[in-house]
Amino acid sequence: MKLLRVGPVGQEKPACLDATGVIRDLTGVATDFEGEGVSLDALEALKGVDLTALPAVEGNSRIGAAVARVETFYAIGLNYAQHAAEAGMEPPKEPILFNKSASCLAGPNDPLTLPKGSEKSDWEVELGVVIGKRAQNVSVEEALSYVAGYCVINDVSERAYQIERGGQWTKGKSAPGFGPVGPYLVTADEVPDPQALGLRLSLNGEMVQDNFTSDMIFSVAEIISHMSEFMALVPGDVIATGTPEGVGMGMKPQRFLRVGDVMELEIDGLGSQRTEVI
Amino acid sequence: MKLLRVGPVGQEKPACLDATGVIRDLTGVATDFEGEGVSLDALEALKGVDLTALPAVEGNSRIGAAVARVETFYAIGLNYAQHAAEAGMEPPKEPILFNKSASCLAGPNDPLTLPKGSEKSDWEVELGVVIGKRAQNVSVEEALSYVAGYCVINDVSERAYQIERGGQWTKGKSAPGFGPVGPYLVTADEVPDPQALGLRLSLNGEMVQDNFTSDMIFSVAEIISHMSEFMALVPGDVIATGTPEGVGMGMKPQRFLRVGDVMELEIDGLGSQRTEVI
Repeated sequence: MKLLRVGPVGQEKPACLDATGVIRDLTGVATDFEGEGVSLDALEALKGVDLTALPAVEGNSRIGAAVARVETFYAIGLNYAQHAAEAGMEPPKEPILFNKSASCLAGPNDPLTLPKGSEKSDWEVELGVVIGKRAQNVSVEEALSYVAGYCVINDVSERAYQIERGGQWTKGKSAPGFGPVGPYLVTADEVPDPQALGLRLSLNGEMVQDNFTSDMIFSVAEIISHMSEFMALVPGDVIATGTPEGVGMGMKPQRFLRVGDVMELEIDGLGSQRTEVI
Repeated sequence: MKLLRVGPVGQEKPACLDATGVIRDLTGVATDFEGEGVSLDALEALKGVDLTALPAVEGNSRIGAAVARVETFYAIGLNYAQHAAEAGMEPPKEPILFNKSASCLAGPNDPLTLPKGSEKSDWEVELGVVIGKRAQNVSVEEALSYVAGYCVINDVSERAYQIERGGQWTKGKSAPGFGPVGPYLVTADEVPDPQALGLRLSLNGEMVQDNFTSDMIFSVAEIISHMSEFMALVPGDVIATGTPEGVGMGMKPQRFLRVGDVMELEIDGLGSQRTEVI
């Protein structure tokens, strides 16, 4: 299933894209997509629903973030070798884990206002993973069975705030709008191999990131297994799994976001985002 | 008001301590204490309720975490000069900000199971701040008007996971049970000066942390104002504001948590916690 949320900010309704491309309103059929609402059990129950019997969403409605709320917003750093190189860092020996604020969540096509005084805001296309079942000390082999689904995430990052403000990265990862998620939460059954997806980001029409998830240093399964040693992953947790090379910080000269810039992101099978900086 | 949550894990009911020390059941009167349920508006509405008309909570009920869910769980590092010294670090020039996982939340007296293989789990008594109103780019002067209330937090930390596993601290701060919060969410009107509170932690009856919030390097107001430059703080966000000296990592020889240890924490006016390691 391709689940999504449509409507004005704060008033989104859960919905689903049907086989013919029509968006069907799941109000009253599904709870909103957060916490237990994205549990494997809740998603399994949805699969039995006859979508064609549900009302179509009329008009050209805004698409909200694919999840209504993030339980904890996790992200993995330097998970593609070429990106680690462009950032001037050694490839990590184990996943580097940091957090984004839940309040940075945004719709896939919402405009982005840079934080006051920002001069080094940057883009990062990433495969997003939504957890569907409590995971603690799970093996690599069983890790993917805890995944509710996948989505496109732009892990927008303010490099000065990330790197020059105390050592921990969260200050540079958390401004409002720094977490566009969606358009869809694509359930795991529709993504047979999360390591076989092309992911791309263009800036003002020029392709700047263009790679495959097969290039990850740590696979989705390895990330989940590793994280589950340190914390309990729970339904509604979101993990951004790292970005390939081609971010502005790695360009010579460096290139950061300015008003009027348009980022377009796409991951095979997961849909696309378009974010204009205003 | 001293708000709390009583009942078995996952079935807690919102409640309030009345003037005579009786716990009154707020079911049907208050929504659970999370997100908008701890907004300044929601708390203001509660002040008009005649507590004596509500049923008392009978028996010796478990007290749950003072908030049902954390929107984003923030914590400040090295915010007391002597603690920075015992950690072998320079006092920071601005607040060091990191995250704990939402899933580490625990009740104030719940037993703690150390993560598998943990050898360096440590204690940190901290003043907790719960945000009650969206805050973005707020001044130091107005910052405290965004606070819903205060609570006791034990920022339990696994030092090896925090420091030796990739540089970002979240791996060492997030295991299940690493975030006891409560017993009470004490509304801000009952805490005229958050910088004038004694806070203490004893280990097996021996006082190991004993200081005052007046010793913070960055005050609660400064922390909120600073954070609000980088992210939107929202109702239900929780901030642990740093710990004074006396953690196990700073002892000579170092002393970490072992099965059977009992931590007792207390902050003036905010109540006490008792956590046994099992």
